[in-house]
Amino acid sequence: MGVGCSSSLPPTVNNPHCSITFPHTSAHTNPTSNHLPINWLARAHLQKPTKSPISKRLFTLDSARKTPTLKCGRTAQMEIEGGSDSKPILDLHSLDDNLVQKMVYDALVWSSLHGLVVGDRNVQRSGTVPGVGMVHAPFALLPTVFPENQWKLACEVAPIFNELVDRVSLDGKFLQESLSRTKKVDAFTSRLLDIHSKMLEINKKEEIRLGLHRSDYMLDEKTKLLLQIELNTISTSFPGLGSVVSELHRSLLKNYGEHLGCDVNCTPSNDAANRFSEALAKAWIEYNNPKAVIMVVVQPEERNMYDQHWLSFNLKERYPFMIRKTMAEIDKEGEIQPDGTLLVGGHAIAVIYFRAGYAPTDYPSEAEWRARLLMEHSSAIKCPSISYHLTGTKKIQQELAKPNVLEKFIDNKEDIAKLRKCFAGLWSLDDADIVDTAIEKPHLFVMKPQREGGGNNIYGDDVREALLRLRKDGKEQNAAYILMQRIFPTDSATFLVRDGSCHKDHAVSELGIYGAYLRNKDKVIVNERSGYLMRTKVSSSNEGGVAAGFAVLDSLYLT
Amino acid sequence: MGVGCSSSLPPTVNNPHCSITFPHTSAHTNPTSNHLPINWLARAHLQKPTKSPISKRLFTLDSARKTPTLKCGRTAQMEIEGGSDSKPILDLHSLDDNLVQKMVYDALVWSSLHGLVVGDRNVQRSGTVPGVGMVHAPFALLPTVFPENQWKLACEVAPIFNELVDRVSLDGKFLQESLSRTKKVDAFTSRLLDIHSKMLEINKKEEIRLGLHRSDYMLDEKTKLLLQIELNTISTSFPGLGSVVSELHRSLLKNYGEHLGCDVNCTPSNDAANRFSEALAKAWIEYNNPKAVIMVVVQPEERNMYDQHWLSFNLKERYPFMIRKTMAEIDKEGEIQPDGTLLVGGHAIAVIYFRAGYAPTDYPSEAEWRARLLMEHSSAIKCPSISYHLTGTKKIQQELAKPNVLEKFIDNKEDIAKLRKCFAGLWSLDDADIVDTAIEKPHLFVMKPQREGGGNNIYGDDVREALLRLRKDGKEQNAAYILMQRIFPTDSATFLVRDGSCHKDHAVSELGIYGAYLRNKDKVIVNERSGYLMRTKVSSSNEGGVAAGFAVLDSLYLT
Repeated sequence: MGVGCSSSLPPTVNNPHCSITFPHTSAHTNPTSNHLPINWLARAHLQKPTKSPISKRLFTLDSARKTPTLKCGRTAQMEIEGGSDSKPILDLHSLDDNLVQKMVYDALVWSSLHGLVVGDRNVQRSGTVPGVGMVHAPFALLPTVFPENQWKLACEVAPIFNELVDRVSLDGKFLQESLSRTKKVDAFTSRLLDIHSKMLEINKKEEIRLGLHRSDYMLDEKTKLLLQIELNTISTSFPGLGSVVSELHRSLLKNYGEHLGCDVNCTPSNDAANRFSEALAKAWIEYNNPKAVIMVVVQPEERNMYDQHWLSFNLKERYPFMIRKTMAEIDKEGEIQPDGTLLVGGHAIAVIYFRAGYAPTDYPSEAEWRARLLMEHSSAIKCPSISYHLTGTKKIQQELAKPNVLEKFIDNKEDIAKLRKCFAGLWSLDDADIVDTAIEKPHLFVMKPQREGGGNNIYGDDVREALLRLRKDGKEQNAAYILMQRIFPTDSATFLVRDGSCHKDHAVSELGIYGAYLRNKDKVIVNERSGYLMRTKVSSSNEGGVAAGFAVLDSLYLT
Repeated sequence: MGVGCSSSLPPTVNNPHCSITFPHTSAHTNPTSNHLPINWLARAHLQKPTKSPISKRLFTLDSARKTPTLKCGRTAQMEIEGGSDSKPILDLHSLDDNLVQKMVYDALVWSSLHGLVVGDRNVQRSGTVPGVGMVHAPFALLPTVFPENQWKLACEVAPIFNELVDRVSLDGKFLQESLSRTKKVDAFTSRLLDIHSKMLEINKKEEIRLGLHRSDYMLDEKTKLLLQIELNTISTSFPGLGSVVSELHRSLLKNYGEHLGCDVNCTPSNDAANRFSEALAKAWIEYNNPKAVIMVVVQPEERNMYDQHWLSFNLKERYPFMIRKTMAEIDKEGEIQPDGTLLVGGHAIAVIYFRAGYAPTDYPSEAEWRARLLMEHSSAIKCPSISYHLTGTKKIQQELAKPNVLEKFIDNKEDIAKLRKCFAGLWSLDDADIVDTAIEKPHLFVMKPQREGGGNNIYGDDVREALLRLRKDGKEQNAAYILMQRIFPTDSATFLVRDGSCHKDHAVSELGIYGAYLRNKDKVIVNERSGYLMRTKVSSSNEGGVAAGFAVLDSLYLT
């Protein structure tokens, strides 16, 4: 499926990666320290995870008005910094049921005609054969209101994060050392580090480096700060369907905007699929072998295949030969020629685009590990390389949040300040003070296991219990987790459409900003923000805004 | 689903209309007579429905060639009139299996991303809820070779047929008289005629008349003549998906043309969906009530809904308010205001677009008949009116083929000659001579019941038996059938893709040309050819090219 995939979308069988990426929580920290700031603690302590009245935070309906109510060009800076609620422009409660029904019907039709589809888990072949057993992807009926200044900030830092990943990936020692203790307690990370070590040993250089990233954020209700949940550097999901859903919303706003009092221009177009395709194509050009193809590494079953196909489709319009292979197939059919060229099934491979290989379940046997090692040995451009992959781990995220670590990789002070502004509070479990605080106030933290995939985040009183148990068991296991500030995002009324039905619920949203980076030796060919992904999730069944429930694809309505 | 729908597409439950329209057969006749021409009989007698060698009639592959093999601008007139086979340009037998597999995969992906979908009969809600239980529509992998001169002829006569339908529809007496004996033996036609009579009685005028037609043809193998199978005047299916499948083929030819030796420009773009939407929109404008909506009359379950949605989608981009109602709903919610305005569920109706109401099964109770009558009474523009509907019956088709009948409706001799050139041999069973001939040579005829819907066409020895039985039973039942020349179309190797799988088989094709006609009193606003529909069907299980089997959507490759 891909990293950061929603747990609501038909998952590949037992793919635990799908359930851990959404329910993130964390807390804003002092820009130059990873110690818990007192004012944050004070605020957070007062803040119970209660629902705030929906109508206040939403739009008011003025169906008689013919001109759009809002100019989305304005920023909500003052309101946000002043801590007031954003300007109401549409009250979902007052929406006429008939109108909602019509919009839902139109949205379902639009989705079907425009490829906003996934494989239906009830149809067996839907994960292997395209064109059969399709169902619309779950989506929010209307885009979610989001402050334009925070959106701009997230867009602005995307190229800096791209650059950061590249710099960190080059520091093999930093990666190995930072992850050395994690290696002992997490078998999966350990295998990745083994491959990384082998590459360091043979002094393997990746001269052409391609990154297709997504940095995920949540907006903290009280502080109005946009805090980073995680940075995905492998198999970032939904550049395809995410692009399509924003077009769906733009179509609905265009047709119903007058009745909703909305302006279609407040929902930005989303060209993630095109930008990623373009970056893959440019990487192919850099590889400079006209006979070589782009290879997408896929899971044997993939119900989110259409998300990937949107990229392939864009690419095929230019380069007919793109192949899809599983890790097992690559093990079977792959070989490396003396000049380093990877051949798979007779095709020379220019670019390897991973849409698998990010989770332990993607490596059910040694065959897949052999394939990964083979690819890493080759001269093909890996998206991502093993170094890029490791740079996206939670432990590295936490290491980068430590004082004076960003400075090792980035020179520009302003850039560093911008990145830090997005960092939530992140701590190692070796920090005894913070562990004491978390035992005392567990609802302000979330414990995240290093292991990718699993829905294993720990919340609430379980944090206290887990920390006490770890304290008893000894320090070794500390490295398997990090502690993160828990974010309490704004929740708002949302119409969620899934399996042909619509229901209204309180929901919280997560914003992902895609970034593409391509470099050949000293030449940066691409470094850009490449569209976005909004996902929205029912908040009713959680403690504080983020837990069980399903996520739907969404887009932004900037205010 | 719609008239002329393929039996292979998920049909509405027991919708017999879906199975009768494809397996047509008939025989070319003297332009000025409906008597069997001797030369046709002589030719046909010699002609056994055998398969001719495929390779001769197909393309030869020259994958090394980079420039397209063909210039589609040229006509095949000489070859065709000379009776020679069309120039071979691609031999499907020599196509590499891997290449076919790749193209099939790409085609399935393309279909899913571009709305070439239908409801899956295995999923219960797929006929009622959009967005669930979707599967790609069955399609031919590559377009079917077709002579450009015949294509041009079919396009050229489309506006003449449009005009003919309009003229015939105004002659209430002709319709009533022609169908008077059919009325006695066919309950469905009888009910339609009752409504028609009532309109005549009250002298109801349809000043704004909208027709969205499709004239279906087959190319007769030996004569190389394009002969009309039928003219559909109600609920013509596949303007939506037909448009999409030609885009699919153009995409494949673009990406694989070099390997196939084909030129994408030989497959004409198909704008049927746009043209029909445009005609509906123009009718709405003529009605001149900005508050009124377009109403699509639909079946309660419709797995071919996406074909309809393509039109609605195009329309919605301009006019958000289009409603879909079943006949039963219209009976329940409909009323006519004193000024003639039809209100349904409170909406004033400008245009009624029938995608139901063409078959007896669409009228399970008196409610549906009441609804039909109500609509006919109203001032709404009906597409079609009861007169247009009746003009499309087989009996009228046969009456128009009689000598000197076209002359009653059309002045221009050239136009008449063009229409006649397309007419297959069509006879009433009252013609004793032709019945004798058909008893003697039943394989040269097909017996078609007047009743729409049913797959009840009679072929081969069954023709003889049926005619002998009718002769015994007396003349009354003669009016329930017409006799038609049996067409023996060219069959050719085709890759048919259905339910995610591809198989190669011998297949025959039927070409439909859409026509749109809109008139307000004396002013003709639209009279045009509006795109096309190619359907292709396995010929292996039939006698002579047309019987059981499934049809797939296809497009043209003009040579």
